[in-house]
Amino acid sequence: MFNFDFYNPTRIVFGKGRITDLNKHIPQQARVLVLYGGGSVKTTGTLTEVLHALGDRVVSEFAGIEPNPSYETLMQAVEVVRREKIDFLLAVGGGSVIDGTKFVAAAALYDGDCLNILKTRGSTIKQALPIGVVLTLSATGSEMNNGGVVTVKSTHTKSAFFSEKLFPQFSILDPTKTFTLSPRQIGNGVVDAFVHITEQYLTYPANAPVQDRFAEGLLLTLIELGEKALSNPDDYDVRANLMWVATMALNGLIGSGVPQDWSTHMIGHELTALYNIDHAQTLAIVLPSMLTVRKEAKREKLLQFATRVWQLTDGDDDTRIDAAIAKTRAFFESVGVKTRLADYGVTTIDEVLAQLEAHRMTALGERREVTLDVSRQVLELSR
Amino acid sequence: MFNFDFYNPTRIVFGKGRITDLNKHIPQQARVLVLYGGGSVKTTGTLTEVLHALGDRVVSEFAGIEPNPSYETLMQAVEVVRREKIDFLLAVGGGSVIDGTKFVAAAALYDGDCLNILKTRGSTIKQALPIGVVLTLSATGSEMNNGGVVTVKSTHTKSAFFSEKLFPQFSILDPTKTFTLSPRQIGNGVVDAFVHITEQYLTYPANAPVQDRFAEGLLLTLIELGEKALSNPDDYDVRANLMWVATMALNGLIGSGVPQDWSTHMIGHELTALYNIDHAQTLAIVLPSMLTVRKEAKREKLLQFATRVWQLTDGDDDTRIDAAIAKTRAFFESVGVKTRLADYGVTTIDEVLAQLEAHRMTALGERREVTLDVSRQVLELSR
Repeated sequence: MFNFDFYNPTRIVFGKGRITDLNKHIPQQARVLVLYGGGSVKTTGTLTEVLHALGDRVVSEFAGIEPNPSYETLMQAVEVVRREKIDFLLAVGGGSVIDGTKFVAAAALYDGDCLNILKTRGSTIKQALPIGVVLTLSATGSEMNNGGVVTVKSTHTKSAFFSEKLFPQFSILDPTKTFTLSPRQIGNGVVDAFVHITEQYLTYPANAPVQDRFAEGLLLTLIELGEKALSNPDDYDVRANLMWVATMALNGLIGSGVPQDWSTHMIGHELTALYNIDHAQTLAIVLPSMLTVRKEAKREKLLQFATRVWQLTDGDDDTRIDAAIAKTRAFFESVGVKTRLADYGVTTIDEVLAQLEAHRMTALGERREVTLDVSRQVLELSR
Repeated sequence: MFNFDFYNPTRIVFGKGRITDLNKHIPQQARVLVLYGGGSVKTTGTLTEVLHALGDRVVSEFAGIEPNPSYETLMQAVEVVRREKIDFLLAVGGGSVIDGTKFVAAAALYDGDCLNILKTRGSTIKQALPIGVVLTLSATGSEMNNGGVVTVKSTHTKSAFFSEKLFPQFSILDPTKTFTLSPRQIGNGVVDAFVHITEQYLTYPANAPVQDRFAEGLLLTLIELGEKALSNPDDYDVRANLMWVATMALNGLIGSGVPQDWSTHMIGHELTALYNIDHAQTLAIVLPSMLTVRKEAKREKLLQFATRVWQLTDGDDDTRIDAAIAKTRAFFESVGVKTRLADYGVTTIDEVLAQLEAHRMTALGERREVTLDVSRQVLELSR
């Protein structure tokens, strides 16, 4: 096991009916900005519930944080924060709203050009406003970590940033709030969580059996629940467990002390920035090909994945690895997420490679072996 | 899954050579009290390393926190804290030293009779001094939770207390610091962690597959590592993984949203308080009998335990459950921890039952079904 630090002070408030706990966790005197997305929180009644729980605190709203939240939109929220003297941010939504809120929390108190937050990947963040979360869509894990991803529209650039100042103080996870999600949102959430896990698990052995068993436990649970989450949208336990898997998938725990990959994410980000393909869809496109192209580098963990996650015991090593990758692809398709570039109308890969090069994504992966040439092979195989 | 809150802000600093990080995590101006046990931290050189890392901070020492730390001893430390105007406590040791330090942290700022901290199980703690930990013995998980257990010698009473104020700010986990432990300490640590897990896992199904898979992963890892930890005391990876299992076993994670038992611990506490049997030894005595006596109440989880943890697939349900319990007992014995009262010279159980009654431990377990009569059956079976 590698040396590591693990630190995660976010308070999880889990279960049905927990939105009323907002009153416990936000100071009575706070001036609150509630940030959300496209309005579904209004039609579902969640926003009303949130505003009710906030009681007589001073509350403003900022609507319109888009999927793949943009720097341009978020800077408008920063204006509101400054104008209204906001001192507490409450994100009501999924990963995009939470990521965007984290950016606003840092940008509102940032000294200098806020683009530098992205250029320095968050390392220049010295302070941030406190953040709370009401989660309505399980996928990214942003509700219990210190990172976010923001897109600069003008340059088609998706940038990740991290800072210990950006952990939400609390996140309310009420599974009933996910009952109204569309099949596309649920399928995307399942794939997103799955790939978060594999990016921290399918690398090379590091003698870290706890992290391995935890990752496998999360994958097994996702596989058990994935299709049920689509066919039984009102099943509380299915949605609750899916929510907990997605949170655990990216809260730092399973990635502590082990190598990590993230090349699938980096290539996926370019696909989203160029073609506006959903984040999870890009992961479903890239991961199976990535595992195939990098089979040798990942051989031992792929065999473990085949045995422990997919219960594949027949055939030689290569047969089992190929079957595990095929089952992974089939699982993504089974939750309604297509796995080929052609499914999304993308016919050329040259633009993607050019963007990877422009963003210096030329040595990705757990051993920095994913060169542009490897990325080309992966994208070719993803057609 | 039940509704739950999960909150754990302790920073884990894991790996070899990490004691130098003390300098980062304790304020430069702090007046530090270093608390430890019987002097092994001196002979191993750990104390010297700690003092070196503390640099020119004002440092005092308090030695002599005993296994099953006593209220009487700890109140002496409280005196030192007050006299020396200490504002940071650094525990260097295992669970007893950390538990004791937590008590001191609360007692030093407590208004009124400090025995009330124990009588109210910590609920009256309003503030506590900040705590750091250098862990030298893996077992109790106290390095990453908010609870402790303290013995009042005069009344033979072991009392648990909890408070959010008592999370260590950081815990340094350097596996090499456990190389010098005795086989008895290592065996005890393995059993302690094992039973912490089963108290949160072997109850009744609550539709919480993540918690189940995590618990099973920790148990599987313990079983893989237990004997190796004894036979290869210098194997870094074995000790590192054992350390991480013990921390994960009782940091709130696997117990979130699921029923918990703790009856084995409560009976075990009486055995320690009366006969000074090591904590883990008492658990090894009680658990196998407890599982046998409560087989019906725990049937479904015991079957899952048999299948997933012990890979028992032959025979009918009762055969597999009995085999799983037998394997559990054999595992404890394999790491050198005896599992019968007679092994420790205890021949009568009446005193234990009288103490359970005196401490109102008359309705224990996940459904409060462990009456004095059930405890009697368990103890009879443990002879």
